[in-house]
Amino acid sequence: MKDFTICPKFESAFELLGKRWTGLIIRVLLNGPTRFKEVSNLIPNLSDRVLSERFKQLEEAGIIKRNVYPETPIRIEYELTEKGKSLKPMMDECEKWADIWVE
Amino acid sequence: MKDFTICPKFESAFELLGKRWTGLIIRVLLNGPTRFKEVSNLIPNLSDRVLSERFKQLEEAGIIKRNVYPETPIRIEYELTEKGKSLKPMMDECEKWADIWVE
Repeated sequence: MKDFTICPKFESAFELLGKRWTGLIIRVLLNGPTRFKEVSNLIPNLSDRVLSERFKQLEEAGIIKRNVYPETPIRIEYELTEKGKSLKPMMDECEKWADIWVE
Repeated sequence: MKDFTICPKFESAFELLGKRWTGLIIRVLLNGPTRFKEVSNLIPNLSDRVLSERFKQLEEAGIIKRNVYPETPIRIEYELTEKGKSLKPMMDECEKWADIWVE
């Protein structure tokens, strides 16, 4: 069964996306590069501490990148990589499923 | 943003599917109702203890059901519910993604 080799990858993907707020952060970034404060304002219940932590984890996983623009004041934006952008079909399917089946 | 209300559902789905072996067990059951020992034989590294635990969690989540046939010897089969079967499109997308992007 070919799925046997895919499984660990599959699990690591779900494990990352199962962390609180991660899905929503990716959703926000699917609209384009965004600053820390913009994400933070769009998700009122998400603390800055947890947002920093999630950004770091997503950057380590190669799902987002951090762009620093040396302006005054300095501008920092977070953007999905190709790996991150290609999560969209899965997230769409997951949302469809959860919308019907999760209470 | 409509996604704000969907997010907790989305996370709970990913949290469940991120548990070790869960994706693979669902994959096996997508082929039809299966006995404990058959699943256990198909996934050699999965211990019976962990398989029992996953079956229980998946049953509690309404993703599988346990059918008991009062034959001699008694026959017990595990089967995906409609909720469980409808995970297929998401799992397919996740596998496609993981196959390309996860090392």
